[in-house]
Amino acid sequence: MTQITIDATFGEARAGRLLLPRGEVATPCFMPVGTRGAVRTLTSDDLASLGAGIILGNTYHLMLRPGHELIARRGGLHRYIGWDGSILTDSGGFQIMSLNAKVSEEGVEFVSVYDGSRLWMTPETAVAAQNAIGSDIQMALDVCPKLPASPEITREALERTTEWAKRAREAFLCSPESETSSQFGILQGGTSEALRRESALRTTEIGFDGYALGGLSVGEDRSERLPAIATACANLPQNQPRYLMGVGDPLSIIEAISAGVDMFDCVLPTRLARHGTALTSQGRLNLKNSSYAEDDTAIDPEFPESPASKWSRAYLRHLLMVKEPTAARILTLHNLAWLLHLMEQSRQAIANGSLNELQQKIAQVWQ
Amino acid sequence: MTQITIDATFGEARAGRLLLPRGEVATPCFMPVGTRGAVRTLTSDDLASLGAGIILGNTYHLMLRPGHELIARRGGLHRYIGWDGSILTDSGGFQIMSLNAKVSEEGVEFVSVYDGSRLWMTPETAVAAQNAIGSDIQMALDVCPKLPASPEITREALERTTEWAKRAREAFLCSPESETSSQFGILQGGTSEALRRESALRTTEIGFDGYALGGLSVGEDRSERLPAIATACANLPQNQPRYLMGVGDPLSIIEAISAGVDMFDCVLPTRLARHGTALTSQGRLNLKNSSYAEDDTAIDPEFPESPASKWSRAYLRHLLMVKEPTAARILTLHNLAWLLHLMEQSRQAIANGSLNELQQKIAQVWQ
Repeated sequence: MTQITIDATFGEARAGRLLLPRGEVATPCFMPVGTRGAVRTLTSDDLASLGAGIILGNTYHLMLRPGHELIARRGGLHRYIGWDGSILTDSGGFQIMSLNAKVSEEGVEFVSVYDGSRLWMTPETAVAAQNAIGSDIQMALDVCPKLPASPEITREALERTTEWAKRAREAFLCSPESETSSQFGILQGGTSEALRRESALRTTEIGFDGYALGGLSVGEDRSERLPAIATACANLPQNQPRYLMGVGDPLSIIEAISAGVDMFDCVLPTRLARHGTALTSQGRLNLKNSSYAEDDTAIDPEFPESPASKWSRAYLRHLLMVKEPTAARILTLHNLAWLLHLMEQSRQAIANGSLNELQQKIAQVWQ
Repeated sequence: MTQITIDATFGEARAGRLLLPRGEVATPCFMPVGTRGAVRTLTSDDLASLGAGIILGNTYHLMLRPGHELIARRGGLHRYIGWDGSILTDSGGFQIMSLNAKVSEEGVEFVSVYDGSRLWMTPETAVAAQNAIGSDIQMALDVCPKLPASPEITREALERTTEWAKRAREAFLCSPESETSSQFGILQGGTSEALRRESALRTTEIGFDGYALGGLSVGEDRSERLPAIATACANLPQNQPRYLMGVGDPLSIIEAISAGVDMFDCVLPTRLARHGTALTSQGRLNLKNSSYAEDDTAIDPEFPESPASKWSRAYLRHLLMVKEPTAARILTLHNLAWLLHLMEQSRQAIANGSLNELQQKIAQVWQ
């Protein structure tokens, strides 16, 4: 169902629009992460006022709490959380890695992070759960190994992910939800260009509504990541969306945009916010630093559109030092606004041919 | 400086307007508590959209973090926190009690809750700190004993509070800030009607811009409190504001309004919110209760104006169970809106003669 209209290109970079049932989303886009049905410290109204068109939920977490069937009885996740925009759900591949879940040919056995109970997930049940949740974009269940990984582990993850992708696609296409929602396949292959090419070809052969690059930002350096991204993009169809999973530092985002990626998600801006760190045009700002105690300037004077622009660094530093939760909220709003603004700048830069300049500007302060 | 215009009365109850340098505040009013320069989970923008005209800060806490002199260098507390409304500062009497601080004739020695350092406060330094903070309404330093208290302790607190009130008033009137801001005296006397009368007479003899009832909601029952409040109000000037400190349960508020109180503050609505409890027209609602897991109704269907009305009890229960900070924010907004709405209802009820009916309605669900 998901279509992408490309309005402008610059080299491999593309600026366009995702056409989703709940509206268009300008790309390249960043999707704030609401793992458990909320972006931490924010409401759905906040996300709307930030101008986020699409957010992320996590199937593994939502299956456990409050349960996908409970969500279905509430009329789906959009209605449950009061969100009119689009929702993409990550199926659980990342949790297979982070929770060291036990993978077999048939599926994966998770141990609940909440109460230690067992959760059995297969490509088919992941589709069923995402159908119940009512995602606009579902992800096929994948196997996502930590990096660095041996060639054997990387190969095995690619093979299993491909097999599961076939089963996930079949399950999805057999469900009535396939008429209104979309499903993306996930590429694996670690940092190997050859394996990324193979994964792109074999996954596009199955045929999804869009393609995600999984298994990155899981231990490798930024420089190792980029050739894999470029090779994958070069082997994906031009007329379908490409999504780089879990990568959110500004320089990696700009580099991936240059390589042809359309969609991003990451907990980085919201997690940094909760630890007192702001994204700014001069780089990261650790607002707990005592040097800001009497600094009356805004977090980022070069970004006056920030929803936090009325509060000074001095005030935010104080709130952080006395552990007032208001600080996390203000910084979360700021960091997401800053990153969404970077996406807008990148769209404009693609349209007017200045993407290289934007990338250089970002590279000067972000590493 | 503070003046109150009484627009309507019903028995001893009064509806009117506080005339403050930063605007009028309709009374009876409730003041959200921002102890350290923020109401927990909210920004100053949130408080403005809730329609709060005046908020509370705490002198003791602000002297320690970030420091009243630092606040003065930032241009005062209003500017520091980005708040256009009015600010009342509590001077520290409550902390004398809650922190068991060492009181002498001259002043009080606090131990910092932050780092164990010593803070010496006198009636005069409390005025100086509140001048530095830039409060619109300052409180004189008082001695606030826990209840129940022996007659000797209650008498001693009254005497010392009265002596300190004289010194605080003199210090305030000698400062240029007295031309733009106000200072309230605080009555003590425990639950004794005789002592409350004496405290009212001796404090009004000193002559303040308004009068606060201190030393209540510190261990006594609601029924013990009311005669003391009524007696104090009966012995305070009609043309000046009366403020009941730290009392925030809906029934106590309505009863105190009926006795002639104009102003309230309490951490109750914000603290309950953080623990998952909502104020509603049917009483307290503990949203962690499993019975709300599939309840699609709003927190309080009889209060559709709530800023939380778009989210269901089911969603809020889920957020609370997985410890998402979004829950505390939504419930804080709701509880403050609910209490501010109760104040508006009370003003209308005084104007149209239906205060008894409102009180009966509140008494049916709140105890």
